[in-house]
Amino acid sequence: MNPTQLVQRAPVEAKLATIGTKTPENETTAQTARRRIRQGQESGQTSGMAPGFVQGNVVILPADWAGDFLRFCQANPKPCPLLAVSDPGNPRLPTLGADIDIRTDLPRYVLFRDGEPDGDPAFGEVVDIREHWRDDFVTFVLGCSFSFEEDLIADGVPVRHIGLGRNVPMYRTSIPCTGAGRFQSDMVVSMRPLTPKDAIRAIQLTSRFPSVHGAPVHFGDPRAIGIGDLQQPDFGDPVPVDAAEVPVFWACGCTPQLAIRAARPPIAIMHSPGCMLITDLRNTHLSVI
Amino acid sequence: MNPTQLVQRAPVEAKLATIGTKTPENETTAQTARRRIRQGQESGQTSGMAPGFVQGNVVILPADWAGDFLRFCQANPKPCPLLAVSDPGNPRLPTLGADIDIRTDLPRYVLFRDGEPDGDPAFGEVVDIREHWRDDFVTFVLGCSFSFEEDLIADGVPVRHIGLGRNVPMYRTSIPCTGAGRFQSDMVVSMRPLTPKDAIRAIQLTSRFPSVHGAPVHFGDPRAIGIGDLQQPDFGDPVPVDAAEVPVFWACGCTPQLAIRAARPPIAIMHSPGCMLITDLRNTHLSVI
Repeated sequence: MNPTQLVQRAPVEAKLATIGTKTPENETTAQTARRRIRQGQESGQTSGMAPGFVQGNVVILPADWAGDFLRFCQANPKPCPLLAVSDPGNPRLPTLGADIDIRTDLPRYVLFRDGEPDGDPAFGEVVDIREHWRDDFVTFVLGCSFSFEEDLIADGVPVRHIGLGRNVPMYRTSIPCTGAGRFQSDMVVSMRPLTPKDAIRAIQLTSRFPSVHGAPVHFGDPRAIGIGDLQQPDFGDPVPVDAAEVPVFWACGCTPQLAIRAARPPIAIMHSPGCMLITDLRNTHLSVI
Repeated sequence: MNPTQLVQRAPVEAKLATIGTKTPENETTAQTARRRIRQGQESGQTSGMAPGFVQGNVVILPADWAGDFLRFCQANPKPCPLLAVSDPGNPRLPTLGADIDIRTDLPRYVLFRDGEPDGDPAFGEVVDIREHWRDDFVTFVLGCSFSFEEDLIADGVPVRHIGLGRNVPMYRTSIPCTGAGRFQSDMVVSMRPLTPKDAIRAIQLTSRFPSVHGAPVHFGDPRAIGIGDLQQPDFGDPVPVDAAEVPVFWACGCTPQLAIRAARPPIAIMHSPGCMLITDLRNTHLSVI
Protein backbone atom coordinates (compact mmCIF):
# COMPACT_ATOMS: atom_id res chain seq x y z
CA MET A 1 0.00 0.00 0.00
CA ASN A 2 1.82 3.10 -1.21
CA PRO A 3 0.17 6.25 0.16
CA THR A 4 1.71 8.49 -2.48
CA GLN A 5 -0.28 6.57 -5.10
CA LEU A 6 -3.48 6.80 -3.12
CA VAL A 7 -3.28 10.52 -2.70
CA GLN A 8 -3.74 11.27 -6.38
CA ARG A 9 -7.07 9.54 -6.69
CA ALA A 10 -10.14 10.46 -4.67
CA PRO A 11 -12.24 13.33 -6.00
CA VAL A 12 -12.92 16.42 -3.91
CA GLU A 13 -15.93 17.74 -5.79
CA ALA A 14 -18.41 16.41 -3.24
CA LYS A 15 -16.70 18.27 -0.45
CA LEU A 16 -16.44 21.49 -2.43
CA ALA A 17 -20.11 21.39 -3.25
CA THR A 18 -21.38 21.03 0.28
CA ILE A 19 -19.24 23.23 2.47
CA GLY A 20 -19.13 27.00 2.68
CA THR A 21 -16.08 29.14 2.02
CA LYS A 22 -16.18 31.56 4.96
CA THR A 23 -12.69 32.96 5.64
CA PRO A 24 -12.50 34.38 9.16
CA GLU A 25 -9.84 36.95 9.89
CA ASN A 26 -7.15 36.44 12.50
CA GLU A 27 -7.25 32.67 12.20
CA THR A 28 -4.03 30.73 12.85
CA THR A 29 -2.30 28.80 10.07
CA ALA A 30 -3.71 25.63 11.68
CA GLN A 31 -7.24 27.02 11.51
CA THR A 32 -6.68 28.16 7.93
CA ALA A 33 -5.39 24.72 6.93
CA ARG A 34 -8.35 22.98 8.57
CA ARG A 35 -10.82 25.37 6.96
CA ARG A 36 -9.29 24.85 3.53
CA ILE A 37 -9.35 21.07 4.04
CA ARG A 38 -12.95 21.26 5.29
CA GLN A 39 -13.91 23.30 2.24
CA GLY A 40 -12.19 20.85 -0.11
CA GLN A 41 -9.48 23.29 -1.13
CA GLU A 42 -6.75 20.91 0.10
CA SER A 43 -6.85 17.19 -0.56
CA GLY A 44 -3.21 16.09 -0.36
CA GLN A 45 -0.79 15.24 2.39
CA THR A 46 -0.55 17.68 5.28
CA SER A 47 3.23 17.52 5.73
CA GLY A 48 4.54 21.09 5.80
CA MET A 49 1.11 22.67 6.39
CA ALA A 50 0.74 24.91 9.46
CA PRO A 51 4.35 24.70 10.66
CA GLY A 52 4.66 24.58 14.44
CA PHE A 53 1.25 22.96 14.97
CA VAL A 54 0.78 19.36 16.06
CA GLN A 55 -0.63 16.93 13.51
CA GLY A 56 -2.17 13.65 14.53
CA ASN A 57 -2.94 10.12 13.38
CA VAL A 58 -6.67 9.39 13.48
CA VAL A 59 -8.49 6.15 14.33
CA ILE A 60 -12.30 6.00 14.53
CA LEU A 61 -14.01 2.90 15.95
CA PRO A 62 -17.49 1.92 17.19
CA ALA A 63 -17.91 2.36 20.96
CA ASP A 64 -17.98 -1.38 21.60
CA TRP A 65 -14.43 -1.62 20.15
CA ALA A 66 -13.18 1.62 21.68
CA GLY A 67 -12.49 0.28 25.16
CA ASP A 68 -10.13 -2.41 23.91
CA PHE A 69 -8.39 0.08 21.62
CA LEU A 70 -7.98 2.62 24.42
CA ARG A 71 -6.33 -0.06 26.54
CA PHE A 72 -4.12 -1.04 23.57
CA CYS A 73 -2.92 2.58 23.26
CA GLN A 74 -2.37 2.86 27.00
CA ALA A 75 -0.28 -0.31 27.00
CA ASN A 76 1.79 0.75 23.97
CA PRO A 77 2.47 4.47 24.35
CA LYS A 78 5.49 4.57 22.02
CA PRO A 79 3.64 3.49 18.84
CA CYS A 80 0.23 4.76 20.07
CA PRO A 81 0.71 8.05 21.99
CA LEU A 82 -2.82 9.34 22.66
CA LEU A 83 -3.42 13.08 22.24
CA ALA A 84 -7.21 12.97 22.55
CA VAL A 85 -10.25 10.66 22.65
CA SER A 86 -13.74 11.90 21.74
CA ASP A 87 -17.03 11.28 23.47
CA PRO A 88 -19.01 8.52 21.68
CA GLY A 89 -20.89 9.91 18.69
CA ASN A 90 -19.42 13.38 19.07
CA PRO A 91 -17.35 14.44 16.03
CA ARG A 92 -15.81 17.33 18.01
CA LEU A 93 -12.38 17.29 19.66
CA PRO A 94 -12.44 20.53 21.67
CA THR A 95 -9.07 19.97 23.37
CA LEU A 96 -7.38 19.94 19.96
CA GLY A 97 -9.31 22.83 18.35
CA ALA A 98 -12.68 24.47 19.00
CA ASP A 99 -13.82 24.22 15.37
CA ILE A 100 -12.68 20.65 14.66
CA ASP A 101 -15.23 18.33 13.05
CA ILE A 102 -13.50 15.01 12.51
CA ARG A 103 -16.04 14.14 9.77
CA THR A 104 -14.70 16.80 7.39
CA ASP A 105 -11.33 18.01 8.67
CA LEU A 106 -8.98 15.39 7.20
CA PRO A 107 -8.00 15.63 3.52
CA ARG A 108 -8.69 11.90 3.02
CA TYR A 109 -9.89 8.95 5.04
CA VAL A 110 -9.64 5.20 4.58
CA LEU A 111 -12.62 3.03 5.50
CA PHE A 112 -11.94 -0.47 6.74
CA ARG A 113 -14.68 -3.11 6.85
CA ASP A 114 -13.80 -6.29 8.73
CA GLY A 115 -10.19 -5.11 8.78
CA GLU A 116 -9.86 -4.56 5.02
CA PRO A 117 -9.89 -1.27 3.08
CA ASP A 118 -13.37 -0.86 1.68
CA GLY A 119 -14.09 -1.04 -2.06
CA ASP A 120 -12.34 0.12 -5.22
CA PRO A 121 -10.83 1.92 -7.04
CA ALA A 122 -9.30 4.07 -4.29
CA PHE A 123 -8.94 1.38 -1.62
CA GLY A 124 -11.78 2.83 0.36
CA GLU A 125 -10.54 6.41 0.34
CA VAL A 126 -13.02 9.23 0.83
CA VAL A 127 -12.60 12.95 1.43
CA ASP A 128 -15.49 13.26 3.89
CA ILE A 129 -17.10 10.75 6.26
CA ARG A 130 -20.36 12.56 7.09
CA GLU A 131 -22.39 9.93 5.28
CA HIS A 132 -20.58 7.12 7.14
CA TRP A 133 -20.81 8.71 10.60
CA ARG A 134 -22.49 6.72 13.38
CA ASP A 135 -23.66 7.94 16.75
CA ASP A 136 -21.48 5.36 18.48
CA PHE A 137 -18.21 6.35 16.80
CA VAL A 138 -15.26 7.20 19.06
CA THR A 139 -12.32 9.15 17.62
CA PHE A 140 -8.74 8.61 18.76
CA VAL A 141 -6.02 11.11 17.84
CA LEU A 142 -2.43 9.87 18.21
CA GLY A 143 0.78 11.88 18.06
CA CYS A 144 2.77 11.75 14.83
CA SER A 145 6.43 12.08 13.93
CA PHE A 146 5.86 15.32 11.99
CA SER A 147 6.21 17.10 15.35
CA PHE A 148 9.66 15.79 16.16
CA GLU A 149 10.87 16.00 12.55
CA GLU A 150 10.23 19.73 12.68
CA ASP A 151 12.41 19.86 15.80
CA LEU A 152 15.18 17.79 14.20
CA ILE A 153 15.31 20.02 11.12
CA ALA A 154 15.29 23.18 13.23
CA ASP A 155 18.29 21.78 15.12
CA GLY A 156 20.21 20.99 11.93
CA VAL A 157 19.69 17.22 11.95
CA PRO A 158 18.91 16.27 8.34
CA VAL A 159 15.79 14.17 7.68
CA ARG A 160 16.50 12.16 4.54
CA HIS A 161 12.97 11.43 3.30
CA ILE A 162 11.94 15.07 3.64
CA GLY A 163 15.04 16.16 1.75
CA LEU A 164 14.10 13.72 -1.02
CA GLY A 165 10.39 14.68 -1.00
CA ARG A 166 9.36 11.13 -0.08
CA ASN A 167 7.16 9.53 2.55
CA VAL A 168 9.12 8.07 5.49
CA PRO A 169 9.98 4.36 5.07
CA MET A 170 8.05 2.16 7.54
CA TYR A 171 8.53 -1.49 8.43
CA ARG A 172 6.73 -4.25 10.29
CA THR A 173 9.03 -5.56 13.01
CA SER A 174 9.26 -8.61 15.25
CA ILE A 175 8.81 -6.38 18.34
CA PRO A 176 5.49 -7.45 19.90
CA CYS A 177 3.11 -4.84 21.26
CA THR A 178 1.29 -5.60 24.50
CA GLY A 179 -2.09 -7.05 23.57
CA ALA A 180 -5.37 -5.58 24.87
CA GLY A 181 -8.65 -7.40 24.35
CA ARG A 182 -9.10 -7.98 20.63
CA PHE A 183 -6.14 -5.82 19.63
CA GLN A 184 -2.69 -7.29 19.17
CA SER A 185 0.08 -6.43 16.72
CA ASP A 186 3.78 -6.32 16.14
CA MET A 187 5.19 -2.81 16.21
CA VAL A 188 5.60 -0.80 13.02
CA VAL A 189 8.64 1.49 12.95
CA SER A 190 9.72 4.41 10.79
CA MET A 191 13.37 4.73 9.79
CA ARG A 192 15.63 7.75 9.36
CA PRO A 193 19.30 7.28 8.37
CA LEU A 194 21.67 9.41 10.48
CA THR A 195 25.37 9.66 11.25
CA PRO A 196 26.16 8.51 14.82
CA LYS A 197 26.68 12.14 15.85
CA ASP A 198 23.28 13.17 14.49
CA ALA A 199 21.70 10.00 15.90
CA ILE A 200 22.90 10.89 19.42
CA ARG A 201 21.44 14.38 19.02
CA ALA A 202 18.20 12.96 17.58
CA ILE A 203 17.87 10.62 20.58
CA GLN A 204 18.20 13.63 22.89
CA LEU A 205 15.72 15.75 20.93
CA THR A 206 13.06 13.09 20.47
CA SER A 207 13.32 11.96 24.11
CA ARG A 208 11.77 15.33 24.95
CA PHE A 209 8.63 14.41 22.96
CA PRO A 210 7.11 11.25 24.47
CA SER A 211 3.67 12.11 23.09
CA VAL A 212 4.95 11.91 19.50
CA HIS A 213 6.72 8.51 19.77
CA GLY A 214 9.65 9.72 21.91
CA ALA A 215 13.13 8.22 21.66
CA PRO A 216 14.01 5.60 19.04
CA VAL A 217 13.36 1.95 19.81
CA HIS A 218 16.42 0.67 17.90
CA PHE A 219 19.34 1.65 15.70
CA GLY A 220 21.75 -0.32 13.55
CA ASP A 221 21.15 -3.91 12.44
CA PRO A 222 17.62 -4.12 10.95
CA ARG A 223 17.55 -7.93 11.36
CA ALA A 224 17.73 -7.56 15.14
CA ILE A 225 14.11 -6.32 14.99
CA GLY A 226 12.96 -8.59 12.19
CA ILE A 227 13.42 -6.28 9.20
CA GLY A 228 14.78 -8.14 6.16
CA ASP A 229 15.51 -5.41 3.62
CA LEU A 230 15.60 -1.68 4.35
CA GLN A 231 15.06 -0.97 0.64
CA GLN A 232 11.69 -2.75 0.74
CA PRO A 233 9.62 -0.89 3.34
CA ASP A 234 6.16 -2.23 4.17
CA PHE A 235 4.72 1.30 3.98
CA GLY A 236 6.09 4.55 2.56
CA ASP A 237 9.09 4.95 0.29
CA PRO A 238 12.65 3.59 0.51
CA VAL A 239 15.51 6.02 1.15
CA PRO A 240 19.27 5.42 0.78
CA VAL A 241 21.43 4.81 3.86
CA ASP A 242 24.98 6.13 3.35
CA ALA A 243 28.08 4.20 4.49
CA ALA A 244 28.74 6.65 7.34
CA GLU A 245 25.13 6.40 8.57
CA VAL A 246 23.15 3.98 10.69
CA PRO A 247 19.42 3.39 10.31
CA VAL A 248 17.55 4.74 13.37
CA PHE A 249 14.09 3.33 14.10
CA TRP A 250 11.19 5.04 15.87
CA ALA A 251 7.87 3.48 16.90
CA CYS A 252 5.29 4.41 14.27
CA GLY A 253 1.65 5.48 14.30
CA CYS A 254 0.92 2.93 11.56
CA THR A 255 1.00 0.25 14.26
CA PRO A 256 -2.75 0.67 15.02
CA GLN A 257 -3.54 -0.07 11.39
CA LEU A 258 -1.91 -3.49 11.72
CA ALA A 259 -3.80 -4.09 14.96
CA ILE A 260 -7.12 -3.12 13.34
CA ARG A 261 -6.49 -5.25 10.27
CA ALA A 262 -5.86 -8.22 12.57
CA ALA A 263 -8.78 -7.53 14.95
CA ARG A 264 -11.24 -7.06 12.04
CA PRO A 265 -13.82 -4.73 13.59
CA PRO A 266 -16.91 -4.46 11.31
CA ILE A 267 -16.02 -0.83 10.59
CA ALA A 268 -13.07 1.43 11.30
CA ILE A 269 -11.99 4.72 9.74
CA MET A 270 -8.42 6.03 9.67
CA HIS A 271 -6.65 8.99 8.10
CA SER A 272 -5.14 8.26 4.70
CA PRO A 273 -1.36 7.97 5.20
CA GLY A 274 0.20 11.44 5.41
CA CYS A 275 -3.23 13.13 5.52
CA MET A 276 -3.28 14.01 9.21
CA LEU A 277 -5.52 16.02 11.52
CA ILE A 278 -3.99 19.49 12.00
CA THR A 279 -4.60 20.62 15.59
CA ASP A 280 -4.26 23.88 17.51
CA LEU A 281 -1.62 22.36 19.83
CA ARG A 282 1.90 23.72 19.42
CA ASN A 283 4.72 21.23 18.80
CA THR A 284 6.85 23.04 21.38
CA HIS A 285 4.15 22.43 24.02
CA LEU A 286 4.59 18.66 23.61
CA SER A 287 8.18 18.92 24.86
CA VAL A 288 8.38 17.61 28.42
CA ILE A 289 11.53 19.62 29.10
CA MET B 1 50.53 3.01 30.88
CA ASN B 2 48.36 0.57 32.78
CA PRO B 3 46.96 2.10 35.97
CA THR B 4 46.21 -1.25 37.56
CA GLN B 5 49.96 -1.96 37.54
CA LEU B 6 50.81 1.41 38.99
CA VAL B 7 48.42 1.02 41.86
CA GLN B 8 50.33 -1.83 43.42
CA ARG B 9 53.60 0.05 43.79
CA ALA B 10 53.93 3.29 45.71
CA PRO B 11 54.42 2.91 49.46
CA VAL B 12 52.04 4.48 51.93
CA GLU B 13 54.27 4.48 54.99
CA ALA B 14 55.21 8.15 54.66
CA LYS B 15 51.58 9.19 54.72
CA LEU B 16 50.74 6.93 57.64
CA ALA B 17 53.60 8.36 59.65
CA THR B 18 52.65 11.99 59.25
CA ILE B 19 48.89 12.22 59.50
CA GLY B 20 46.65 11.74 62.52
CA THR B 21 43.88 9.17 62.81
CA LYS B 22 41.07 11.28 64.23
CA THR B 23 37.70 9.66 63.43
CA PRO B 24 34.92 12.22 63.79
CA GLU B 25 31.43 10.89 64.36
CA ASN B 26 28.58 11.63 61.98
CA GLU B 27 30.87 12.03 58.99
CA THR B 28 29.53 11.07 55.56
CA THR B 29 30.97 8.13 53.63
CA ALA B 30 32.73 10.73 51.45
CA GLN B 31 34.32 12.34 54.49
CA THR B 32 35.29 8.92 55.86
CA ALA B 33 36.88 7.92 52.57
CA ARG B 34 38.85 11.18 52.35
CA ARG B 35 40.00 10.85 55.96
CA ARG B 36 41.15 7.28 55.42
CA ILE B 37 42.98 8.32 52.25
CA ARG B 38 44.49 11.31 54.06
CA GLN B 39 45.63 9.02 56.86
CA GLY B 40 47.17 6.54 54.40
CA GLN B 41 44.64 3.80 55.19
CA GLU B 42 43.51 3.67 51.54
CA SER B 43 45.99 3.77 48.67
CA GLY B 44 44.15 2.09 45.80
CA GLN B 45 41.57 3.12 43.26
CA THR B 46 38.52 4.99 44.54
CA SER B 47 35.94 3.27 42.31
CA GLY B 48 33.13 2.04 44.55
CA MET B 49 34.13 4.19 47.54
CA ALA B 50 31.47 6.55 48.95
CA PRO B 51 28.63 5.58 46.60
CA GLY B 52 26.45 8.52 45.59
CA PHE B 53 29.25 11.09 45.94
CA VAL B 54 30.93 12.80 43.01
CA GLN B 55 34.55 11.87 42.30
CA GLY B 56 36.80 14.07 40.20
CA ASN B 57 39.83 14.10 37.94
CA VAL B 58 42.57 16.38 39.31
CA VAL B 59 45.05 18.58 37.44
CA ILE B 60 47.48 20.88 39.30
CA LEU B 61 49.49 23.48 37.36
CA PRO B 62 51.59 26.56 38.15
CA ALA B 63 49.60 29.80 37.97
CA ASP B 64 51.35 30.96 34.78
CA TRP B 65 49.97 27.86 33.02
CA ALA B 66 46.56 27.90 34.71
CA GLY B 67 45.00 30.58 32.52
CA ASP B 68 45.63 28.65 29.32
CA PHE B 69 44.38 25.42 30.91
CA LEU B 70 41.23 27.10 32.20
CA ARG B 71 40.49 28.31 28.68
CA PHE B 72 41.21 24.81 27.33
CA CYS B 73 38.62 23.35 29.71
CA GLN B 74 36.11 26.05 28.90
CA ALA B 75 36.51 25.38 25.18
CA ASN B 76 36.25 21.59 25.57
CA PRO B 77 33.57 20.97 28.19
CA LYS B 78 32.82 17.37 27.15
CA PRO B 79 36.31 15.95 27.90
CA CYS B 80 37.14 18.65 30.51
CA PRO B 81 34.01 19.45 32.56
CA LEU B 82 35.19 21.76 35.35
CA LEU B 83 33.74 21.17 38.82
CA ALA B 84 36.07 23.55 40.69
CA VAL B 85 39.23 25.67 40.37
CA SER B 86 41.26 26.66 43.44
CA ASP B 87 42.79 30.00 44.32
CA PRO B 88 46.53 30.06 43.46
CA GLY B 89 48.58 28.44 46.21
CA ASN B 90 45.52 27.40 48.20
CA PRO B 91 45.26 23.59 48.60
CA ARG B 92 41.63 23.89 49.75
CA LEU B 93 38.58 23.36 47.56
CA PRO B 94 35.77 24.53 49.85
CA THR B 95 32.99 24.15 47.26
CA LEU B 96 33.77 20.42 47.02
CA GLY B 97 34.26 19.73 50.76
CA ALA B 98 35.18 21.89 53.75
CA ASP B 99 37.99 19.59 54.90
CA ILE B 100 39.60 18.93 51.52
CA ASP B 101 43.37 19.38 51.27
CA ILE B 102 44.39 18.51 47.73
CA ARG B 103 47.97 17.80 48.92
CA THR B 104 46.93 14.70 50.88
CA ASP B 105 43.42 13.68 49.82
CA LEU B 106 44.16 11.59 46.74
CA PRO B 107 45.36 8.00 47.16
CA ARG B 108 48.12 8.57 44.58
CA TYR B 109 49.42 11.34 42.37
CA VAL B 110 51.57 11.40 39.24
CA LEU B 111 54.16 14.16 38.87
CA PHE B 112 54.96 15.32 35.37
CA ARG B 113 58.12 17.34 34.64
CA ASP B 114 58.29 18.87 31.16
CA GLY B 115 55.29 16.73 30.21
CA GLU B 116 56.82 13.40 31.26
CA PRO B 117 56.08 11.34 34.37
CA ASP B 118 58.84 12.07 36.85
CA GLY B 119 61.40 9.42 37.80
CA ASP B 120 61.26 5.70 38.50
CA PRO B 121 60.31 3.11 39.68
CA ALA B 122 56.64 4.14 39.93
CA PHE B 123 56.49 6.54 36.99
CA GLY B 124 56.51 9.50 39.30
CA GLU B 125 53.77 8.25 41.59
CA VAL B 126 53.56 9.60 45.13
CA VAL B 127 50.90 9.28 47.82
CA ASP B 128 51.27 12.83 49.14
CA ILE B 129 52.40 16.07 47.45
CA ARG B 130 53.05 18.28 50.47
CA GLU B 131 56.77 18.31 49.76
CA HIS B 132 56.12 19.26 46.12
CA TRP B 133 53.55 21.98 46.85
CA ARG B 134 54.21 25.50 45.54
CA ASP B 135 52.47 28.71 46.47
CA ASP B 136 51.57 29.31 42.83
CA PHE B 137 49.83 25.96 42.25
CA VAL B 138 46.27 26.05 40.92
CA THR B 139 44.08 22.94 41.26
CA PHE B 140 41.47 21.96 38.69
CA VAL B 141 38.85 19.30 39.48
CA LEU B 142 37.04 17.82 36.49
CA GLY B 143 33.96 15.60 36.47
CA CYS B 144 34.49 11.86 35.95
CA SER B 145 32.45 9.05 34.47
CA PHE B 146 32.07 7.29 37.84
CA SER B 147 29.06 9.58 38.42
CA PHE B 148 27.14 8.53 35.34
CA GLU B 149 28.20 4.88 35.60
CA GLU B 150 26.46 4.76 38.97
CA ASP B 151 23.32 6.09 37.29
CA LEU B 152 23.54 3.56 34.43
CA ILE B 153 23.89 0.63 36.82
CA ALA B 154 21.03 1.89 39.00
CA ASP B 155 18.86 1.99 35.87
CA GLY B 156 19.76 -1.56 34.85
CA VAL B 157 22.17 -0.67 32.04
CA PRO B 158 25.12 -3.06 32.41
CA VAL B 159 28.63 -1.55 32.46
CA ARG B 160 30.97 -4.20 31.09
CA HIS B 161 34.32 -3.17 32.62
CA ILE B 162 32.79 -2.87 36.09
CA GLY B 163 31.21 -6.32 35.73
CA LEU B 164 34.64 -7.67 34.78
CA GLY B 165 36.47 -5.77 37.53
CA ARG B 166 38.60 -3.89 34.99
CA ASN B 167 39.46 -0.27 34.32
CA VAL B 168 37.43 1.27 31.47
CA PRO B 169 39.14 1.05 28.06
CA MET B 170 40.26 4.46 26.77
CA TYR B 171 41.48 5.50 23.34
CA ARG B 172 43.18 8.43 21.65
CA THR B 173 40.96 9.59 18.79
CA SER B 174 41.27 11.77 15.72
CA ILE B 175 38.68 14.20 17.14
CA PRO B 176 40.56 17.49 17.70
CA CYS B 177 39.91 19.51 20.83
CA THR B 178 39.77 23.29 20.51
CA GLY B 179 43.23 24.63 21.31
CA ALA B 180 43.80 27.29 23.99
CA GLY B 181 47.19 28.96 24.35
CA ARG B 182 49.82 26.26 24.86
CA PHE B 183 47.25 23.47 25.26
CA GLN B 184 46.09 21.40 22.32
CA SER B 185 45.19 17.74 22.05
CA ASP B 186 43.07 15.18 20.31
CA MET B 187 40.19 13.91 22.43
CA VAL B 188 40.53 10.76 24.53
CA VAL B 189 37.35 8.67 24.81
CA SER B 190 36.22 5.86 27.07
CA MET B 191 34.24 2.97 25.58
CA ARG B 192 31.36 0.90 26.95
CA PRO B 193 29.78 -1.85 24.81
CA LEU B 194 25.97 -1.77 24.86
CA THR B 195 23.04 -3.22 22.95
CA PRO B 196 21.26 -0.56 20.84
CA LYS B 197 18.37 -0.54 23.35
CA ASP B 198 20.71 0.06 26.28
CA ALA B 199 22.72 2.57 24.23
CA ILE B 200 19.58 4.65 23.60
CA ARG B 201 18.81 4.60 27.33
CA ALA B 202 22.45 5.42 28.18
CA ILE B 203 22.33 8.42 25.83
CA GLN B 204 19.24 9.67 27.65
CA LEU B 205 20.70 9.10 31.11
CA THR B 206 24.13 10.60 30.43
CA SER B 207 22.63 13.61 28.63
CA ARG B 208 21.33 14.65 32.05
CA PHE B 209 24.91 14.90 33.36
CA PRO B 210 26.80 17.46 31.25
CA SER B 211 29.29 18.09 34.09
CA VAL B 212 30.51 14.48 33.97
CA HIS B 213 31.09 14.23 30.19
CA GLY B 214 27.40 14.18 29.20
CA ALA B 215 26.11 12.29 26.16
CA PRO B 216 28.39 10.06 24.08
CA VAL B 217 30.40 11.62 21.25
CA HIS B 218 30.17 8.55 18.97
CA PHE B 219 28.94 4.99 18.67
CA GLY B 220 29.63 2.20 16.21
CA ASP B 221 32.57 2.17 13.80
CA PRO B 222 35.75 2.93 15.81
CA ARG B 223 37.67 3.90 12.65
CA ALA B 224 35.32 6.83 12.08
CA ILE B 225 37.05 8.53 15.04
CA GLY B 226 40.55 7.21 14.38
CA ILE B 227 40.58 4.14 16.65
CA GLY B 228 42.34 1.20 15.00
CA ASP B 229 41.74 -1.71 17.38
CA LEU B 230 39.26 -1.73 20.25
CA GLN B 231 41.19 -4.57 21.88
CA GLN B 232 44.28 -2.37 22.20
CA PRO B 233 43.20 0.63 24.29
CA ASP B 234 45.72 3.43 24.87
CA PHE B 235 44.78 3.54 28.57
CA GLY B 236 42.88 1.11 30.80
CA ASP B 237 41.97 -2.47 29.99
CA PRO B 238 40.31 -4.05 26.93
CA VAL B 239 36.79 -5.49 27.27
CA PRO B 240 34.91 -7.78 24.85
CA VAL B 241 32.18 -6.37 22.58
CA ASP B 242 29.46 -8.93 21.86
CA ALA B 243 27.92 -9.43 18.40
CA ALA B 244 24.62 -7.82 19.48
CA GLU B 245 26.41 -4.78 20.94
CA VAL B 246 27.89 -1.58 19.58
CA PRO B 247 30.81 0.26 21.16
CA VAL B 248 29.63 3.58 22.65
CA PHE B 249 32.23 6.31 23.18
CA TRP B 250 32.22 9.10 25.76
CA ALA B 251 34.65 12.03 26.04
CA CYS B 252 37.20 11.16 28.73
CA GLY B 253 38.93 13.02 31.52
CA CYS B 254 42.27 11.58 30.38
CA THR B 255 42.25 14.16 27.58
CA PRO B 256 44.01 16.81 29.75
CA GLN B 257 46.88 14.40 30.31
CA LEU B 258 47.53 14.28 26.57
CA ALA B 259 47.32 18.06 26.39
CA ILE B 260 49.79 18.45 29.28
CA ARG B 261 52.20 15.91 27.82
CA ALA B 262 52.18 17.91 24.58
CA ALA B 263 52.41 21.36 26.22
CA ARG B 264 55.29 20.29 28.50
CA PRO B 265 54.82 22.62 31.48
CA PRO B 266 57.88 22.44 33.81
CA ILE B 267 55.73 20.78 36.46
CA ALA B 268 52.20 19.38 36.60
CA ILE B 269 50.55 16.99 39.03
CA MET B 270 47.58 14.75 38.26
CA HIS B 271 45.68 12.02 40.06
CA SER B 272 46.93 8.52 39.34
CA PRO B 273 44.40 6.86 37.00
CA GLY B 274 41.40 5.64 38.98
CA CYS B 275 42.60 7.37 42.18
CA MET B 276 40.18 10.28 42.18
CA LEU B 277 39.24 13.11 44.53
CA ILE B 278 36.13 12.11 46.48
CA THR B 279 33.94 15.19 47.00
CA ASP B 280 30.90 16.07 49.11
CA LEU B 281 28.80 16.75 45.99
CA ARG B 282 26.03 14.26 45.32
CA ASN B 283 25.92 12.57 41.91
CA THR B 284 22.17 13.24 41.74
CA HIS B 285 22.82 16.98 42.12
CA LEU B 286 24.82 17.00 38.87
CA SER B 287 21.71 15.99 36.93
CA VAL B 288 20.39 19.00 35.01
CA ILE B 289 16.90 17.50 34.86
